[in-house]
Amino acid sequence: MKKHNFSAGPCILPDEVMQQAAQAVQELDGSGLSLIEISHRSAAFIEIMDKACALALELLGLTDKGYKALFLQGGASTQFLATAYNLLENKGAYLNTGTWSTKAIKEAKLLGEVVEVASSADANFNYIPKEYAVPADADYLHITTNNTIFGTQIKALPETDTVLVSDSSSDIFSRQLDFSKFGILYAGAQKNMGPAGTTLVVVKEEVLGKVTHKIPSMLDYAVHGAKDSMFNTPPVFAVYTSMLTLDWLQKLGGIKAIEAKNNAKAELMYGEIDRNPLFKGFAALEDRSTMNATFTLEKAELKERFDSMCADALISGINGHRSVGGYRASMYNALPLASVQTLVDVMKELERTA
Amino acid sequence: MKKHNFSAGPCILPDEVMQQAAQAVQELDGSGLSLIEISHRSAAFIEIMDKACALALELLGLTDKGYKALFLQGGASTQFLATAYNLLENKGAYLNTGTWSTKAIKEAKLLGEVVEVASSADANFNYIPKEYAVPADADYLHITTNNTIFGTQIKALPETDTVLVSDSSSDIFSRQLDFSKFGILYAGAQKNMGPAGTTLVVVKEEVLGKVTHKIPSMLDYAVHGAKDSMFNTPPVFAVYTSMLTLDWLQKLGGIKAIEAKNNAKAELMYGEIDRNPLFKGFAALEDRSTMNATFTLEKAELKERFDSMCADALISGINGHRSVGGYRASMYNALPLASVQTLVDVMKELERTA
Repeated sequence: MKKHNFSAGPCILPDEVMQQAAQAVQELDGSGLSLIEISHRSAAFIEIMDKACALALELLGLTDKGYKALFLQGGASTQFLATAYNLLENKGAYLNTGTWSTKAIKEAKLLGEVVEVASSADANFNYIPKEYAVPADADYLHITTNNTIFGTQIKALPETDTVLVSDSSSDIFSRQLDFSKFGILYAGAQKNMGPAGTTLVVVKEEVLGKVTHKIPSMLDYAVHGAKDSMFNTPPVFAVYTSMLTLDWLQKLGGIKAIEAKNNAKAELMYGEIDRNPLFKGFAALEDRSTMNATFTLEKAELKERFDSMCADALISGINGHRSVGGYRASMYNALPLASVQTLVDVMKELERTA
Repeated sequence: MKKHNFSAGPCILPDEVMQQAAQAVQELDGSGLSLIEISHRSAAFIEIMDKACALALELLGLTDKGYKALFLQGGASTQFLATAYNLLENKGAYLNTGTWSTKAIKEAKLLGEVVEVASSADANFNYIPKEYAVPADADYLHITTNNTIFGTQIKALPETDTVLVSDSSSDIFSRQLDFSKFGILYAGAQKNMGPAGTTLVVVKEEVLGKVTHKIPSMLDYAVHGAKDSMFNTPPVFAVYTSMLTLDWLQKLGGIKAIEAKNNAKAELMYGEIDRNPLFKGFAALEDRSTMNATFTLEKAELKERFDSMCADALISGINGHRSVGGYRASMYNALPLASVQTLVDVMKELERTA
């Protein structure tokens, strides 16, 4: 029996993608070799990497607009450092909306002056600050479009004259935005794109090359760009599976099509959280994430019963992060509406029998 | 038909490992979930990570000797930078035996003073320098135990009072050494350990914490050690498959058993290179690698014919690196003796019919 996988990441991927990935580990396209034993310099893998990069740009509407898509390693955590190395000359501006923004700020401070333009730490990051000024001499403004732990999401991108940089690990490819507003957009693969082990960095080439310090090779986006993500051995399996997922999304109708599905799932989920007197949402209404719904039980004594009912319904991965407590239902691209319906049914059943 | 895979890396892995990895991508141990959709915080994955780390230390004979095994991302290329960040206070000493050593030196120079104690660049790195002095005030001596591109290998570890650091990407787990001589030993997985996408770092904990500068979190071995390689989301598939490969090696009898097999393959290969008048070895005899045999054809006009005969025999991945030319037969742990015999037979056949 297949579980309803609400894990916050690594998380559910399309079933057909997991089957195709498993097949390729056995043998890649009748080549007589497994995907994981071929050279990354082979024609077969170069084609996979090129396709993954092309699909990423195409889905974001950034083909032929001066952007490069890179598949790197090290997760968003490495990009906290790399973005500062590549851009921070005078001053970096950061919007602090949660744990990951806070970590990005910490790493950037090793390299230069950092300004926190606003923070929602005062309310345990349950909202997105909207009124703030970005210093005129900032090299860039760094935001986190979706905050997995707290379940908040930036709905309208900030208007700014400086380079906009975003950690979009937990909502990339989930909703339509004007992606040409970004100078650098990065995301760990393990939510909407693929397995853990690769990180997509989409970079507008004109934003690079403006710092005077030297950048270590592995953190230098220009180095990776010049080598088409092959400066060193790429994480072959993670790139291949990301390519399959992006291909799946394109065939589904792209970001527009998946956004409609994601909105339907979020409406169903939040509708029940708001209707059911046993539950309470954590995030500010207007900032609620379509990816991660955070909520708590009003009566702590019902926890054991609710957990047991969820387990019986094969619901997996809804424990909240320790910073928030309660529950978190992550509803990434590949999660079916039926899984959300199953969780909502259990919530209703708890209410009926409590 | 399965090919004879002599690829320099990513490369052949044990067939049973590839089959088990494929199965886990479909479903992990009857869990109702794929390996690549489970949380890295799940009990199932924590057990996988713990087992991988324990096996690495056990195989190296370093259990309970003050070492920590870490599974990180970014390849050896990232460790060029990280080792310098973690150790370079006064001066870093480097033995330059090839392309990768040269790159390690380049990255370390960004962080402080670097001394090249010896280099074989004068002979296109076809030998290992053996007579050299390490400055008394060096924080560490960095070596590359096996040079994939040139086919050379350090047979006797240097005697030194300073911390010995090694990039052993292409010969880790292939031969017995006194691994307790290393302060830091690192290796990209994609030769003898698993698929591309994770890097093993084995660090003697007492060598850390001695630099006065701040280290970025993702490059700080103490940070990763304190979180048991879970500071950020680890590359789940690559770690799992590495664990399977290490388990395979342990069941086979460990490094001692595989070393005997590797020696037999190398003797067969080099025996033919030396016997057959049509071929010539590249590396100095006493420094020949048991992992990568580099050789050239004495008559360039035979190239097309030899390549065609190899292809007919399903021999894959023996083109030499552009820095050396000719051929390179990589004979990693999982390559069967029968594959080497097949290549040797083709070489004999070329001689017979040339």
